[in-house]
Amino acid sequence: MRVRATCNLELHLRIATPLILMLRPQSGASQWIFREEYTFSEPVSVLEYSDIFGNLCQRLVAPAGEFKIYTAAEVETSDSMDVALGATFVNVQDLPEQVLGYLLPTRYCESDRLGDVSRKMVEGANLGYDQVASICIWIRNNIPYSPGTSDTPLSAFEVYKQGHGVCRDLAHLGIALCRSISIPTRMVVGYLYGLELMDLHAWFEAYVGDRWYTFDPSQEKLKGGRISIAYGRDAANVMSFTRPY
Amino acid sequence: MRVRATCNLELHLRIATPLILMLRPQSGASQWIFREEYTFSEPVSVLEYSDIFGNLCQRLVAPAGEFKIYTAAEVETSDSMDVALGATFVNVQDLPEQVLGYLLPTRYCESDRLGDVSRKMVEGANLGYDQVASICIWIRNNIPYSPGTSDTPLSAFEVYKQGHGVCRDLAHLGIALCRSISIPTRMVVGYLYGLELMDLHAWFEAYVGDRWYTFDPSQEKLKGGRISIAYGRDAANVMSFTRPY
Amino acid sequence: MRVRATCNLELHLRIATPLILMLRPQSGASQWIFREEYTFSEPVSVLEYSDIFGNLCQRLVAPAGEFKIYTAAEVETSDSMDVALGATFVNVQDLPEQVLGYLLPTRYCESDRLGDVSRKMVEGANLGYDQVASICIWIRNNIPYSPGTSDTPLSAFEVYKQGHGVCRDLAHLGIALCRSISIPTRMVVGYLYGLELMDLHAWFEAYVGDRWYTFDPSQEKLKGGRISIAYGRDAANVMSFTRPY
Amino acid sequence: MRVRATCNLELHLRIATPLILMLRPQSGASQWIFREEYTFSEPVSVLEYSDIFGNLCQRLVAPAGEFKIYTAAEVETSDSMDVALGATFVNVQDLPEQVLGYLLPTRYCESDRLGDVSRKMVEGANLGYDQVASICIWIRNNIPYSPGTSDTPLSAFEVYKQGHGVCRDLAHLGIALCRSISIPTRMVVGYLYGLELMDLHAWFEAYVGDRWYTFDPSQEKLKGGRISIAYGRDAANVMSFTRPY
Repeated sequence: MRVRATCNLELHLRIATPLILMLRPQSGASQWIFREEYTFSEPVSVLEYSDIFGNLCQRLVAPAGEFKIYTAAEVETSDSMDVALGATFVNVQDLPEQVLGYLLPTRYCESDRLGDVSRKMVEGANLGYDQVASICIWIRNNIPYSPGTSDTPLSAFEVYKQGHGVCRDLAHLGIALCRSISIPTRMVVGYLYGLELMDLHAWFEAYVGDRWYTFDPSQEKLKGGRISIAYGRDAANVMSFTRPY
Repeated sequence: MRVRATCNLELHLRIATPLILMLRPQSGASQWIFREEYTFSEPVSVLEYSDIFGNLCQRLVAPAGEFKIYTAAEVETSDSMDVALGATFVNVQDLPEQVLGYLLPTRYCESDRLGDVSRKMVEGANLGYDQVASICIWIRNNIPYSPGTSDTPLSAFEVYKQGHGVCRDLAHLGIALCRSISIPTRMVVGYLYGLELMDLHAWFEAYVGDRWYTFDPSQEKLKGGRISIAYGRDAANVMSFTRPY
Repeated sequence: MRVRATCNLELHLRIATPLILMLRPQSGASQWIFREEYTFSEPVSVLEYSDIFGNLCQRLVAPAGEFKIYTAAEVETSDSMDVALGATFVNVQDLPEQVLGYLLPTRYCESDRLGDVSRKMVEGANLGYDQVASICIWIRNNIPYSPGTSDTPLSAFEVYKQGHGVCRDLAHLGIALCRSISIPTRMVVGYLYGLELMDLHAWFEAYVGDRWYTFDPSQEKLKGGRISIAYGRDAANVMSFTRPY
Repeated sequence: MRVRATCNLELHLRIATPLILMLRPQSGASQWIFREEYTFSEPVSVLEYSDIFGNLCQRLVAPAGEFKIYTAAEVETSDSMDVALGATFVNVQDLPEQVLGYLLPTRYCESDRLGDVSRKMVEGANLGYDQVASICIWIRNNIPYSPGTSDTPLSAFEVYKQGHGVCRDLAHLGIALCRSISIPTRMVVGYLYGLELMDLHAWFEAYVGDRWYTFDPSQEKLKGGRISIAYGRDAANVMSFTRPY
């Protein structure tokens, strides 16, 4: 299916501020960007580079006062996401090198503290895909999706205790729970077609069988129509907007 | 200045053929891509990746028969290119690591065979930028630019003996001559605004002082209005179109 | 000076366990490894790779029962570490790309929560090196170094509240405090000649002026005689021993 | 088997000369370096880095006069090399990204000029491993291995016309012939146990089936006991010693 996504950022800054943005989705296995557009309300000098996760990042200094960024992308993307019940757990010794880093705890995903919690959720499930599916079902049933309730990112453990969260929070919780049982997981930020509040969305991918699969704990059904913009270990690596450090 | 470049590729293939393309210019130090577009005459599945030189490459299998690719880019780019007469030669031991590879001989740039030739051309010139400038002047005066005369790439040594060449040939010769006196050089393929025959163009960059500078031995004057699409050690790494291997 | 370091790891594992080790220091700007040795008590198959921070990592499956690893390195290293009082703060927009990631919060360095704390510590200090020095002095005066008191890593915020810590804890705190005022910092794990309890040691580096400088908040004086084995954003990326996930 | 290899380099330089060396073999799939040693006859400052092919490179400035380098490595390596008759050709569209670059022509491997030659050699062979084997047999029967006859590297095409060559020449020819029929090949420099003249040796690897396999056109039989030091597209990327540029 063809999806058109647009994004308007309006900044009001007291002083000129360095920003690192991730504006450009990249074509990849499941999406082909056939048209893109970027406009700034004032001319600024932009430097682009790839970070260690392969994301295209844009560095610029936003001027003081009002500054608007407008982006649009038209993308050919899958109608539906692959589901692979039964896809097997990969032993740590057999994981590809590039995947190993996604087993580690990160700022918002304290997988080292959630092992006891996750082992209960996946009791009886086949190792691998089905464990991740169990975790997502548990989140959907126990941690209501409450859009718009969070200003600063909470960590997975804080979300678990709080009992509700935005899409980013639910993704963080899913990521941390999977890592705590040695399933590599990474965060995805992007657009999802048909989302009620058209906004940036966050979900995650888990590595089982022999590839990454998409999971979205904040949605009832795993829908297609996704545009991935950035990947990372958690939201600390996937910022579409960075305040002055 | 704002430059709009379009490219039409029409392929007529007897059999389905794997291609590796470099269609997407990337925003960088001297250019900001604010609008891009890609269209294929038939839907194909495209995988995108970055090669070891940082270029965005697109892998696809073009179907048998007619297959058309249309690309367009609108880019904010410099009106003029930096000139730095006197910028100094960098001793090999002081070059940044990522630059070292651009001293090596490559398929079309046999710098190991051109040392005697280049040393004559640069006699009396200050080490560094001025040597590269001398080499470009020598090429302009001695190797006439003859667009459209070459089907398959010649090597720098072959171009030197033949005595004329297309833009790619002249770039290869400049690259090889500079490397033979230990100045790192890399090839650039892209668009140049105002080129008589609007077509893909090739030039090169040399590392002197503390950065890469643009040189274009096939143009009388070093003009701005450039869109860089791909960088490499020579044309063997910078193919905008690869025939079936 | 020449330093010889040895390391004995004795594992007693109930089941065969995949490990990712960082056994090999790499020669670099301040150290040349002129002799190295690795022995396992039983033959195992080892795969080596470089992680995204450039560390050499070794993957293996340790057998059940007793398993011993012995390593030795003889290294030419600096007698003293560079000190650069007055080295200036680098604005975020001017940092090299590879350094930007070291500004982000990580599992054990919640720099996003420590801005108020650090701003007090550095009051009056010149921006840059002197701020880092102020932070280290504050840690030395307020967070006593208590070797051997920690089993599992604490986060910087937890260390701050607890009021004492091992070398790793003090490094985490220093890293988080610096990042909270936009100074890039990275963790180092290695050996320090003359350490009372000869053991693995942890310290950190900060990027000011135009390079990384060494800081060691758990030592009275900044001594030389260091062998760096691994670098990372925090201890979650610098594990010399990973338990079964 | 355990192999001990030593290397003595004696340089006599008129002026201080920057060198880029590849002294350190890395542990990997088929070898574990359990002891290494490096000595210089005079203290020099050495910087180590990884090149784009993953090789550990050492940068130093060798002093004028006599300068000696001594290296030793003790390595656990395979007794025999895997042979996989029948391993299938991988279509270009199915090759892993990192392998694609090894299809391109390089300074000493003009695969773009050898297609007609190689297609004859492999007539009747199954696509893949068996084609590479046919090429190696052809080289052994037609291009006698003549150690010590070459000062500067010849290209594959020159070796083909000359009709004999050193191990490096035969490897270059094998590499170029394979690439001309779309089989990825890479050069390996290292040690081979039992070589009559104990010296650095060169051979190549081809990607068929789903991995790299070892081929050695200058040896009657494919023997084990190998220590790989460096990989590259051809000898221009695999220099264990670089003269002043």
